Amino acid sequence: MMENKDTSASRLMFQRVSESFDKQALMKTIGASLVDVREGSVSIRCMFLDETKQQHGFAHAAVAFAIGDSAAGYSALTMMEPGHEVLTSEMKINLLSPAIGDYLMATGEVVKAGRKLIIVRATVVAVTDGQEKDVAILQGTMVPVAITSF
Amino acid sequence: MMENKDTSASRLMFQRVSESFDKQALMKTIGASLVDVREGSVSIRCMFLDETKQQHGFAHAAVAFAIGDSAAGYSALTMMEPGHEVLTSEMKINLLSPAIGDYLMATGEVVKAGRKLIIVRATVVAVTDGQEKDVAILQGTMVPVAITSF
Amino acid sequence: MMENKDTSASRLMFQRVSESFDKQALMKTIGASLVDVREGSVSIRCMFLDETKQQHGFAHAAVAFAIGDSAAGYSALTMMEPGHEVLTSEMKINLLSPAIGDYLMATGEVVKAGRKLIIVRATVVAVTDGQEKDVAILQGTMVPVAITSF
Amino acid sequence: MMENKDTSASRLMFQRVSESFDKQALMKTIGASLVDVREGSVSIRCMFLDETKQQHGFAHAAVAFAIGDSAAGYSALTMMEPGHEVLTSEMKINLLSPAIGDYLMATGEVVKAGRKLIIVRATVVAVTDGQEKDVAILQGTMVPVAITSF
Repeated sequence: MMENKDTSASRLMFQRVSESFDKQALMKTIGASLVDVREGSVSIRCMFLDETKQQHGFAHAAVAFAIGDSAAGYSALTMMEPGHEVLTSEMKINLLSPAIGDYLMATGEVVKAGRKLIIVRATVVAVTDGQEKDVAILQGTMVPVAITSF
Repeated sequence: MMENKDTSASRLMFQRVSESFDKQALMKTIGASLVDVREGSVSIRCMFLDETKQQHGFAHAAVAFAIGDSAAGYSALTMMEPGHEVLTSEMKINLLSPAIGDYLMATGEVVKAGRKLIIVRATVVAVTDGQEKDVAILQGTMVPVAITSF
Repeated sequence: MMENKDTSASRLMFQRVSESFDKQALMKTIGASLVDVREGSVSIRCMFLDETKQQHGFAHAAVAFAIGDSAAGYSALTMMEPGHEVLTSEMKINLLSPAIGDYLMATGEVVKAGRKLIIVRATVVAVTDGQEKDVAILQGTMVPVAITSF
Repeated sequence: MMENKDTSASRLMFQRVSESFDKQALMKTIGASLVDVREGSVSIRCMFLDETKQQHGFAHAAVAFAIGDSAAGYSALTMMEPGHEVLTSEMKINLLSPAIGDYLMATGEVVKAGRKLIIVRATVVAVTDGQEKDVAILQGTMVPVAITSF
């Protein structure tokens, strides 16, 4: 059945991304978890921890960068050949408002999947009482790397 | 004496930056410490911690971002009016090689200090047995914010 | 009547943008024209001229930059107080495919309109026989400047 | 003789870059010329033309982008294998002050020359009565493309 096949493909895709995600100690350290994996789009949720604040009590810009970059990177991974991992080549972040609220949510998407370079974007929002506020937008480049390279 | 005055100014500058730096919980969490503060240039050293690794055992790109961005931001702070703090408006990072070695060192510098916007650059190197290897370069914009704004 | 009022506001907005656009000699030089002006979104169309080609016969990356940056900047202008002009503070472009076709179309949009900084995005597509192909995406920052400053 | 060999290598390098540069119609259109070619560093000079002004009478940001991007790209070309051309993958520009003066000068440099990606930087200055003023800084990525690909 088409439905089962799709479900199975979705499950394999989630598995591939989560296996990589779970190996990223930093994601655990900052309180981030994988919430959604689709072809060309991945979402990551992140708690506000005392350990990741900057001097004004907001989450540090590097936290928004970390989850935005990872959401974008894993979006790219969903479109890569098996046997490859993803590395960030370059990333640009514009910070829109202080990262404060109940939790952060980053959603990445593939803009163009080339063989050597994958162009990505991500948005990071802070959610408070179910209301979203834009925190950051990112735009960058991911490169596929054969797993045997490591 | 000129010398003492300079020394005193240097000491005040270091104090101003370290007071802000010490309030950034994230810096402690990733093992970063302030090593040098000059007018328009600040250096930050960072250990390799298991807690900040990515899936291949290198320091996560967000760690290079965190210390590069902070070194650049504090470089800007050294050139701001008293009573102001620094916020990152936007930052771009190009990653040059995997972050692995004995420790990381980020050095930020002010390219142009305007009244409203301060343009900055930073370089992050990995040091192994005293040898430096470029890990990342950053280019971005800092904005001064009156401390009373928070 | 509401409709007339809206129409009048739209006309004034187009007029404000086109007055500035028409003063940009470069836009004429590269064959660009203003095609659509809405609150927070502006589109610019650009011909392929022999004068703006790069070494492989495509439009130069700077042409995509020029119209993407201008579309983004004028999107910002539609949301600025009267008596202000727009200047680009910083802009990042990712090039997706060669700029070749019947014509280029750039569409800018405001992501966040602050009082001092306006965060913008733009997309540039090449249109061939009515089919669009992504050429470039841009993300950057615009600053409002009082017209009396010039 | 070593000296002659070096001179010959320099001459070949200048020839390689200028052959590509001369094919870029846009460079001629904006009044740009190649002034210096070294291994990993290229300088381009650009006149102020009425045809390339923006609405305030300064050179358009896209002119600074065009020569900064080209200086950076040709710096990369000097370090590529023969039989390759250079394409910009992504580029970020921070604008520091209005482009006005006697002429503009862009100098590009290679930060890291990888096999697939070359990381570059460039600085654009305006020169007035022999005095330089920073106009823009750029940071980006170039990709080598086999000439037969076109």
